[in-house]
Amino acid sequence: MKLPASTEWVLHCATALAQLEPGVSASAGQLAEYFDLPLPYLAKQLKALVKAGLLTASTGPKGGFRLARAASEITLLQIVEAVDGAASPYECREIRSQGRGALPQEECRTPCILAAKMGEAHRAWRRTLREVSLADILADLPPHAPERTRRRLS
Amino acid sequence: MKLPASTEWVLHCATALAQLEPGVSASAGQLAEYFDLPLPYLAKQLKALVKAGLLTASTGPKGGFRLARAASEITLLQIVEAVDGAASPYECREIRSQGRGALPQEECRTPCILAAKMGEAHRAWRRTLREVSLADILADLPPHAPERTRRRLS
Repeated sequence: MKLPASTEWVLHCATALAQLEPGVSASAGQLAEYFDLPLPYLAKQLKALVKAGLLTASTGPKGGFRLARAASEITLLQIVEAVDGAASPYECREIRSQGRGALPQEECRTPCILAAKMGEAHRAWRRTLREVSLADILADLPPHAPERTRRRLS
Repeated sequence: MKLPASTEWVLHCATALAQLEPGVSASAGQLAEYFDLPLPYLAKQLKALVKAGLLTASTGPKGGFRLARAASEITLLQIVEAVDGAASPYECREIRSQGRGALPQEECRTPCILAAKMGEAHRAWRRTLREVSLADILADLPPHAPERTRRRLS
């Protein structure tokens, strides 16, 4: 069970963008330099955040990416699922209904209790990440961080 | 983020073994037939459960696998982690300390707040599965299930 390495990238990029002045953008190239990441692959991930409605992309000399809404309205869950999807890591292929032990159809109308418990765990994971916004992350940074981020990212 | 397909296999196999009379074993071949699963790969997963101390393997004509301890003492978390490990799906490669935005060392002595939040989510996932034992799963099955399982598995 592994999240793609780009999960770390997009969480940090979104956190960096959340520190810019309102209306200011950073390009994929600026973000790639800021974190020393491969530009083509990072650009693809940033586009996924745009597609998910978390970032806005603009063109032109001062164009680039910025948050599509307030940092308090963007959760870690939304960022993570923008690049990895929302599916549960556990896939139930209904092996209870195959082989010599196959259960009769009428016992398979409700979800398998094992799949249900695995689903509960996934919901607990999602709930934790849904409760943390980019604003919460920013509140945890040292007071001098945003000014430094703006200077180095521009 | 995907758990291996064998996660479903081992959860169901352990649930089936938990329904056998005390001291009774089922072989990998019997379990493979019961769930219509590929024997060589299933055998490998069952060995992982033995290695994790969840099952006991015995040889001989009535040999096979049985629970290594009471069903109430085996959790879904132990079964899942026996085949997939206990690592968090989120890997922090410390990109905060690289590139133009690299933070000074003294700001990297505590874990990154993003990694910490991802870790919290993984702990919530683990906690949910740690709270469910095989005995809890058995308590949810129809009353006639154990007798049927024993009959078809032997």
